[in-house]
Amino acid sequence: MTGLALIEAAAARLDGHARVTPLLNAPLLDAVAGRRIFVKAECLQLTGSFKFRGGWSAISALDDSTRARGVMAFSSGNHAQGVALAARRHGIPAVILMPSDAPKVKIANTRAYGAEVILYDRATEDRDAIGARLTQQRGLTLVKPYDDPQVIAGQGTTGLEIASQAREAGITRATVITCCGGGGLTAGIALALEPAGCFDVRPAEPAGFDDVARSLATGQIQRNAAATGSLCDAILTPSPGAITFPILNRLCGPGLVVTDDEALKAMAVAFAHLRIVLEPGGAVALAAALFRDDLPDTVICTASGGNVDPETFRMALAAGP
Amino acid sequence: MTGLALIEAAAARLDGHARVTPLLNAPLLDAVAGRRIFVKAECLQLTGSFKFRGGWSAISALDDSTRARGVMAFSSGNHAQGVALAARRHGIPAVILMPSDAPKVKIANTRAYGAEVILYDRATEDRDAIGARLTQQRGLTLVKPYDDPQVIAGQGTTGLEIASQAREAGITRATVITCCGGGGLTAGIALALEPAGCFDVRPAEPAGFDDVARSLATGQIQRNAAATGSLCDAILTPSPGAITFPILNRLCGPGLVVTDDEALKAMAVAFAHLRIVLEPGGAVALAAALFRDDLPDTVICTASGGNVDPETFRMALAAGP
Repeated sequence: MTGLALIEAAAARLDGHARVTPLLNAPLLDAVAGRRIFVKAECLQLTGSFKFRGGWSAISALDDSTRARGVMAFSSGNHAQGVALAARRHGIPAVILMPSDAPKVKIANTRAYGAEVILYDRATEDRDAIGARLTQQRGLTLVKPYDDPQVIAGQGTTGLEIASQAREAGITRATVITCCGGGGLTAGIALALEPAGCFDVRPAEPAGFDDVARSLATGQIQRNAAATGSLCDAILTPSPGAITFPILNRLCGPGLVVTDDEALKAMAVAFAHLRIVLEPGGAVALAAALFRDDLPDTVICTASGGNVDPETFRMALAAGP
Repeated sequence: MTGLALIEAAAARLDGHARVTPLLNAPLLDAVAGRRIFVKAECLQLTGSFKFRGGWSAISALDDSTRARGVMAFSSGNHAQGVALAARRHGIPAVILMPSDAPKVKIANTRAYGAEVILYDRATEDRDAIGARLTQQRGLTLVKPYDDPQVIAGQGTTGLEIASQAREAGITRATVITCCGGGGLTAGIALALEPAGCFDVRPAEPAGFDDVARSLATGQIQRNAAATGSLCDAILTPSPGAITFPILNRLCGPGLVVTDDEALKAMAVAFAHLRIVLEPGGAVALAAALFRDDLPDTVICTASGGNVDPETFRMALAAGP
């Protein structure tokens, strides 16, 4: 159901629509880190995160009449924006259910991409019930944020690019650290890199929200105790998915965990040495590469998103590199 | 002495050493600007500015024995870093004369790239005399910041990439706005784009330091009244060069002028919509594209550098998009 063939088919559909993002590095970053670090800058992807890939992949895989009725997504922000722009560029309606406490910039941008945004209260309202009613009433197709083979395939195109760019950079062996929420990006990259046989894939998560690390350690899906409480809003999913976890369990690990302060410091390092803007959840992989010890000489990190409020970015600049 | 052949030869020498930077765009940037804007993100170049291209081009063009004795540069920062890293990667010494009031991050980075940095006081010391003594004593070759055919050729490789990337993006006609100091980047890009016949090249400068705009308007080299007094430190050169000006005069104009506040706002726009870090001098072209009116539907801007202190970046975030 998932695999390299699906990822390659997604890559063909994304060609000319998604951006091939650069694999960045910097001598001064390597000096700070004490190892070679390469950063797959998905913050430079359309809509500012890798989520455009999965959104485009899922929408472009629908049959014409289903697609024409439109799509729906649940998202705190990056998946929302990715699906919204992919829908607009397919000329179809998108309805996005967003928690009312999602970052302001993500809500505003999702609307600016032309989606109908419906806000709900995480504490008192049932997102799934609202979503089910809307999909039924309007004939919308739900584009899940990660537990969908075509979404995983879309995110996996990031991995195809990493393989090709690593080869061009002369990298023969590396650990690839991913920013991991529900595991769509991580599973897709792991599947895409599997044939090369020279990459270990390790998910990074915020402390307190290390469901994937604990799931990998126990071999069983574990859940987070809380749904909020980290700056890394983009990757605070409750648990790995029924489709993503078996892939992660077969191909990835062990998980890496970083604090919010380390994520902020990684944002400051990316500002100073790579001149890219990262959001906290998009900086956890770089934070792990900078601040965890059990890593090899060459590390490739996903910088998975850069949709961040100025206030949070000021916190990162204050945290210093 | 300068021309397309020299630029193509420089491109061959830079291949595999400099980065091919992406040509970025964003639907929400276009919505804010009211026109299509593409940004050539040279802030993502090695050392954080296009200056690495010219440094590499000049050093790689020297004969072996001259090169082995080392190079010297005068620079407030970006040329310093470009020459420093290009020298280190050629395995040769670099001495960089920097004004003591240059941005701290640029001085620190130039040292971190392995150069010997000598600071001088702009007000009381004679940079040229210090430089002449050192080049003579040590047999160093001076790499000028812009008025050198091989430096112009190196910067011109940016233009070759713009031509190719514009073609891929389906752009058939555009105004290319450059961040312009002494005119090395602008002259190089104009020469590289001349054969295509579908690009106008217009230099952008900070208000009060519009020597190039006035020189183009009068057909004679004009000088700035002051040497400091703008946030755009990277492009505060006294006048266009003896080699660059005839090229600019033949191929470019009219010049565009933006305020420091507009440059800060452009940095905030680039932060929000492109997720790249720009310094004020690297944002003047985008500022012109955002805030000047006499421009066509499609504009390509150089984002020429991203070496900025956190304090200045905080000012940009506060200035708002």
